Amino acid sequence: MDKIKVLDHGYVALIESWGSDERIIEAARMSTGRGFEGWEKDFKLLKFLYDNKHATPFEMGGLVIEVKAPIFVFREWHRHRTQSYNEMSARYISLPNENYVPEVQDIVHRSRQATESKNRQAGASRKIDQLEAEGWVRALERLYQQAETLYNLGIEQGVPKELARLPVPVARYSRMRASANLRNWLGFLDLRLASNAQQEIRQYAQAVAQIVALQFPKTWQLFSGDE
Amino acid sequence: MDKIKVLDHGYVALIESWGSDERIIEAARMSTGRGFEGWEKDFKLLKFLYDNKHATPFEMGGLVIEVKAPIFVFREWHRHRTQSYNEMSARYISLPNENYVPEVQDIVHRSRQATESKNRQAGASRKIDQLEAEGWVRALERLYQQAETLYNLGIEQGVPKELARLPVPVARYSRMRASANLRNWLGFLDLRLASNAQQEIRQYAQAVAQIVALQFPKTWQLFSGDE
Amino acid sequence: MDKIKVLDHGYVALIESWGSDERIIEAARMSTGRGFEGWEKDFKLLKFLYDNKHATPFEMGGLVIEVKAPIFVFREWHRHRTQSYNEMSARYISLPNENYVPEVQDIVHRSRQATESKNRQAGASRKIDQLEAEGWVRALERLYQQAETLYNLGIEQGVPKELARLPVPVARYSRMRASANLRNWLGFLDLRLASNAQQEIRQYAQAVAQIVALQFPKTWQLFSGDE
Amino acid sequence: MDKIKVLDHGYVALIESWGSDERIIEAARMSTGRGFEGWEKDFKLLKFLYDNKHATPFEMGGLVIEVKAPIFVFREWHRHRTQSYNEMSARYISLPNENYVPEVQDIVHRSRQATESKNRQAGASRKIDQLEAEGWVRALERLYQQAETLYNLGIEQGVPKELARLPVPVARYSRMRASANLRNWLGFLDLRLASNAQQEIRQYAQAVAQIVALQFPKTWQLFSGDE
Repeated sequence: MDKIKVLDHGYVALIESWGSDERIIEAARMSTGRGFEGWEKDFKLLKFLYDNKHATPFEMGGLVIEVKAPIFVFREWHRHRTQSYNEMSARYISLPNENYVPEVQDIVHRSRQATESKNRQAGASRKIDQLEAEGWVRALERLYQQAETLYNLGIEQGVPKELARLPVPVARYSRMRASANLRNWLGFLDLRLASNAQQEIRQYAQAVAQIVALQFPKTWQLFSGDE
Repeated sequence: MDKIKVLDHGYVALIESWGSDERIIEAARMSTGRGFEGWEKDFKLLKFLYDNKHATPFEMGGLVIEVKAPIFVFREWHRHRTQSYNEMSARYISLPNENYVPEVQDIVHRSRQATESKNRQAGASRKIDQLEAEGWVRALERLYQQAETLYNLGIEQGVPKELARLPVPVARYSRMRASANLRNWLGFLDLRLASNAQQEIRQYAQAVAQIVALQFPKTWQLFSGDE
Repeated sequence: MDKIKVLDHGYVALIESWGSDERIIEAARMSTGRGFEGWEKDFKLLKFLYDNKHATPFEMGGLVIEVKAPIFVFREWHRHRTQSYNEMSARYISLPNENYVPEVQDIVHRSRQATESKNRQAGASRKIDQLEAEGWVRALERLYQQAETLYNLGIEQGVPKELARLPVPVARYSRMRASANLRNWLGFLDLRLASNAQQEIRQYAQAVAQIVALQFPKTWQLFSGDE
Repeated sequence: MDKIKVLDHGYVALIESWGSDERIIEAARMSTGRGFEGWEKDFKLLKFLYDNKHATPFEMGGLVIEVKAPIFVFREWHRHRTQSYNEMSARYISLPNENYVPEVQDIVHRSRQATESKNRQAGASRKIDQLEAEGWVRALERLYQQAETLYNLGIEQGVPKELARLPVPVARYSRMRASANLRNWLGFLDLRLASNAQQEIRQYAQAVAQIVALQFPKTWQLFSGDE
């Protein structure tokens, strides 16, 4: 399993893919009773399908991947209701003590962007400086440790796992398998590669995009506008 | 492409499968952080998942098939909204002149069953005899021919294909690709292998069942009650 | 039940709607913890949601309708897998003898369009004239009658209904209830109001559009580009 | 909006329902061309549909509800992919400082059950006593306060909201609207009223069940086995 590293402890790995660009053409050709006839001719058909939102042939392939990501990323991910998920469960096992710690530079950078943004809701009250950001990250790491200590104490004293997890922060890493057909992976990428997606899930989306580009290169060309 | 023959002109053929019984276990084990550990131990887990309707791991595999079947069969099939379909389109090509002709013996047999059934709605007014059934089938074949003649006349005279098809009977064969994950194929089989399913779609379901049994033998064992 | 007439024997009728443009705003405001604040302000929000494909708030309303349409229209309709359907079943009752007969003028008009179209696949071999079209329609009506006679003969002689229907043409009318949320009705309209949709289903889509426009006038304004 | 209180700060409230037990019958009768004929006769039909898993008529009604619940409950809830969701977003607003604190008695009780359970995975290492449980809950409340302090500090200093939330525990309350048709609500209840569901989501399911029982009393009778 080749893992594409994402964030400080996460990854995306391809488990399996099915179908291919050729199979998409074959499926589309059901309507006229013919098959795949070579890319010279059929890239035009693929482009026609894509541009005119004839989406069902793109359901004839797909990917199963494994993902390790923080809970707040999974919270966004699981809104995609056309994927299949199997995730680690804090009811059954103790979650490993891994929590997402953002880079200080990144906080400073995004704070500046946020204050400059017209979009007040998503914004920040003021621009944080380097020293403050460092201090906040150190406090964050301390809090992660306190939460972990409390979690472990609960488990040792006999608090059922499903309750002992209450203090666990949304930055805690979890792991899952996710499966979807290509049409729905493109829908995921469309939303999660967008500039207004939170940067963390965008990095996961970029890893998924790498895999899509390898498994379905012609479709990827159309999706990425790199014709 | 190995075709499993169904009815007089139809077939079911496997295009591709993904996943496996082992992958189902792997996906289920996400919850506890372990992997596949051998069937000696893990058949019990598979059975637990199946019996307790932990259905999501069974979404981690699936089948793409090609099907040739009469329109009235596709009408029932397409009610399964969790499958992906690409079908021949009578708007774009002339449908081949193939129509389902039931066996005379089969009509006589099902007429008898229907009159004996308590279920009046699905029933028959009276029991047809062999000679009548033969006569009806001959008349049916004549009508198919008349419909075809009218269809061709329309196309030759310049009636657009999408209108020329109006006389085409629901017994006319069409062709499609269908893709679904294993969970949803089992849902399809559950309804379409049942004794109250119409015999024609039941025969297609039996062909799908053969493919499932080959690709996912452990899951099939559980589904078919053959443990 | 007010029926909007469609084609020669069909209709679309509103059974029930739920939600409203206001409810869409309320649902969208979940993200910020506020409610509906009046259209002066909130039409801009609705437009933002619509333009940026924040689609989930549009799932908070919907329509249940009743539709009577020919089988070939239902065949296209049922490809929309996000709607719920309950349809008349030819296994349980004899289908009423109603079949779609296109207008002669319409055939002539569409034949001309088809021959002039660049799109050869969907096209017609040549332009039909008025007399030929009249002749074809008369032959079509005769064929409908023959199919009906054979259908009734089968039922009288004891052919089970599910087999007696084999000669029934795809032009035969059937009836259903369909339910979907607003997002999915808009998806249906997007495809079926388009100029490349077959004219018959386009007329049904126009009837659905009338109902959407009445029940969700603000959303309709955005969908129809009539801001 | 009448709120059914759940846990220490949560609720479930009905926003809107559509359809009715009668409408389910009407939809089912599409197959035979008749309508609702009174419960004396039609309760038998409803029971037949329910017992034989003719599920589509139960898609013709539904509920929109509003829910306030801890994040770990929403994590389980959102696995139900047939519901529509709009939830408060920590990217856009500061989450109110409300966190789930379990009852000491409840922890002691569930710890005892867990140690006695044969199911080791879900179990507890040993039985916690009253004093320990009190201590753990006090520590939990302190940790919630520290997380809140850190969260607020981040926001004041200019950490973007989407990052400032990292320390927020999964016990934090959030709010959403959820919509689904009756068939899918019953699927939700089937899993989440079960004895092996975590007690917290089970309490939410019980609140949803109250609403279903009021809006669809006949269907509820069948679901709850109280015929």
